[in-house]
Amino acid sequence: MSQLIALARCGICARSALAPVAAHQRAGGTAVSRRLCGVRWLSRHGVRKIGLGDGVCTGLLVGGAVLVGVTAVGFGLSRQRAVMAAERWRGGTERDQLAREEMLQKCKHFMSDPVTNIDQLLENKENMRTKMELLIMDVQADVCKALAEVDGGQTFKVDRWHRKEGGGGISCVLQDSKVFEKAGVNVSVVFGNLSEEAAKQMRSRGKSLKTKGKLPFCAMGVSSVIHPKNPHIPTIHFNYRYFEIEEADGQKSWWFGGGTDLTPTYLNKDDAVHFHKTLKEACDKHDKSYYPTFKKWCDDYFVIKHRGERRGVGGIFFDDLNSPSAEGLFEFVQSCAKAVVPCYIPIVRKHLHDSYTAEEKAWQQLRRGRYVEFNLVYDRGTKFGLATPGSRIESILMSLPLTARWEYMHSPAKGTSEAEIMEVLRNPKDWVH
Amino acid sequence: MSQLIALARCGICARSALAPVAAHQRAGGTAVSRRLCGVRWLSRHGVRKIGLGDGVCTGLLVGGAVLVGVTAVGFGLSRQRAVMAAERWRGGTERDQLAREEMLQKCKHFMSDPVTNIDQLLENKENMRTKMELLIMDVQADVCKALAEVDGGQTFKVDRWHRKEGGGGISCVLQDSKVFEKAGVNVSVVFGNLSEEAAKQMRSRGKSLKTKGKLPFCAMGVSSVIHPKNPHIPTIHFNYRYFEIEEADGQKSWWFGGGTDLTPTYLNKDDAVHFHKTLKEACDKHDKSYYPTFKKWCDDYFVIKHRGERRGVGGIFFDDLNSPSAEGLFEFVQSCAKAVVPCYIPIVRKHLHDSYTAEEKAWQQLRRGRYVEFNLVYDRGTKFGLATPGSRIESILMSLPLTARWEYMHSPAKGTSEAEIMEVLRNPKDWVH
Repeated sequence: MSQLIALARCGICARSALAPVAAHQRAGGTAVSRRLCGVRWLSRHGVRKIGLGDGVCTGLLVGGAVLVGVTAVGFGLSRQRAVMAAERWRGGTERDQLAREEMLQKCKHFMSDPVTNIDQLLENKENMRTKMELLIMDVQADVCKALAEVDGGQTFKVDRWHRKEGGGGISCVLQDSKVFEKAGVNVSVVFGNLSEEAAKQMRSRGKSLKTKGKLPFCAMGVSSVIHPKNPHIPTIHFNYRYFEIEEADGQKSWWFGGGTDLTPTYLNKDDAVHFHKTLKEACDKHDKSYYPTFKKWCDDYFVIKHRGERRGVGGIFFDDLNSPSAEGLFEFVQSCAKAVVPCYIPIVRKHLHDSYTAEEKAWQQLRRGRYVEFNLVYDRGTKFGLATPGSRIESILMSLPLTARWEYMHSPAKGTSEAEIMEVLRNPKDWVH
Repeated sequence: MSQLIALARCGICARSALAPVAAHQRAGGTAVSRRLCGVRWLSRHGVRKIGLGDGVCTGLLVGGAVLVGVTAVGFGLSRQRAVMAAERWRGGTERDQLAREEMLQKCKHFMSDPVTNIDQLLENKENMRTKMELLIMDVQADVCKALAEVDGGQTFKVDRWHRKEGGGGISCVLQDSKVFEKAGVNVSVVFGNLSEEAAKQMRSRGKSLKTKGKLPFCAMGVSSVIHPKNPHIPTIHFNYRYFEIEEADGQKSWWFGGGTDLTPTYLNKDDAVHFHKTLKEACDKHDKSYYPTFKKWCDDYFVIKHRGERRGVGGIFFDDLNSPSAEGLFEFVQSCAKAVVPCYIPIVRKHLHDSYTAEEKAWQQLRRGRYVEFNLVYDRGTKFGLATPGSRIESILMSLPLTARWEYMHSPAKGTSEAEIMEVLRNPKDWVH
């Protein structure tokens, strides 16, 4: 489907989908992925106005491309269902309209429209998929804005992308800016049938999945890696995700996963304590056992096995969580995701003007190399992404640093700051107790 | 076993093991891993002279370290067997002595003593393991010397290493020299029981291995990656290996694998033709079907699947070869391995003084990033190495470049030299016909 049906009121100009295109354009809705504009058009392809006699479509039919096509077809919404939704909207109650306005207000904060069409989100607003998609969009915006601010107002490059097998995403990247070597915050909402390779990976970690036939799944999440230039500002990674799959017995199962972890080039104990404390507070609101359990899980997960060292000073990590309740876990995931900014931004600000030597920069580059090793050899998310056909590689590998270095047989001398961090990477510490 | 038994005549000073240490030292045999000196000593630990009454040992007993300890214990040789071999040597025929002298002469060319003790090699000189070990030592020396010469006489750092589970290796590395960013030529001879992870990897490519119990194996090979500084000199990789394993039914099976491939940053058709022609000549001597078959195998193997591009302009690649005969295949592998220098060195010389821009260097760095992606995500050898406990990580990851770069959404403009190479990486060419 290469055409796009306009369904919604434009969030920018507040005109309905049936208003003339020129009116949207005058109101500033001209860009390809103009934020919140249900009517999307491609300046390159031009806009075609289609009359009501066009069979199915009652709105505008625009020469679409992959990049924008997802908006109307996202989440498996058929053209027919989309039209039905549009009909309902025009005939909706005042309450429906209020809900819509509320949703549009919420979306204004986002870096881009959600992956799923707003009508469909409204239609399923109590569904966990909808709640999670709105949360990850919200977190993406929070983090990007906080990073842009600390970077003196830099602008993130925002790419909407479409996965032809189902779904898509929004990648926000800041590269080689004043403060950041590379900062990427990615949202993805993908669905379809699990590839055999991806299913194999899941089985290898204990999921009981049927070995023959299709395995319908839906995976969504926000994931981010921020590599600052200054070696005294640590790298942060976070990822919060929700997964649904139809298992062997036809039953649907679901789970949440996620975590936030810090990778300093040099050890700063105060930073590590602040980071872990903020995460602990987010966890403690939900269950006192969460922080110690997920802190340990993080220490066990982010291990560069072949080096016998951890990637950083840890944080929290969890996966396959499906009890006590989806609602409770969503609240927990929300708290953690919302803790990213207070976890990290104060550390960035604190070291923003720290001076550093060429040797310190070189050590950072070596540690970047280790980061690459972990991500390409061990990271579950990266491996799942690379094994899922149609994945957007640029978004998955956004996590890799801009530059990295591998020196043969490099080993820091005893008593140096480089040796100090190595000690912590080999023997993880308790930072909060 | 932290002590080392001196068994052999010293290859440097030609004195027997029982000659006073001072005589060896005067003759220039003082370094820890002094080449060919059956009597090895550690200047740090000093030398202890042991009388004949020392129970088992009839020679010198030296305070040894892991790095050199392998010489006497390599290939499963027990202390008792080593002593027996030494006894035989002293009582050997003239023919034995001549064979020994010949072997020592051969070894003089090497970058270090072979991994396996010379007595044991002599004892099993018709064995394929011995032949292959001598070949890979020889090729290592050929390549290192040719590279050092083209680099204006730079000296390789030579590390002997010991694998506590069995075997060891010799790593030769030149880093940040005049011509090379990183040049590593590694020999390894390892044996023991296959790890479950490594066995799993083998099964996944069709090997029928028993799922329970020990799987004794021996793997040896020479492998090398050369990353030059100048973006107009391509990167080369080669690897020639021999594998023996005891399978489910108790039967021993063996196979050869290997290949040589070229990764230019910019396309130079003449270089690609020269490279492939030289490989084809080496193959054609043995079987006219080899080059086309192994050229295609190479194109199919060195694929960065998630990018839909090959790593370079290919070369040859083969694995699991076990027919028509071990002897015939050894000869073939020998021809290929001996073709590395004539394949590559003329290309290095040709571009030694090519000038280049900062943009060309930056493009090289991006291609280095792709090299890292292939090696860490797909390369069978790297994955086997990382999954084999006790592997020497520094030698395995020697293949990674000194520096690499990842830019988000980088794509060369149409009509540029960068786009030209990308076209070839996406659609491999026939270079010889």
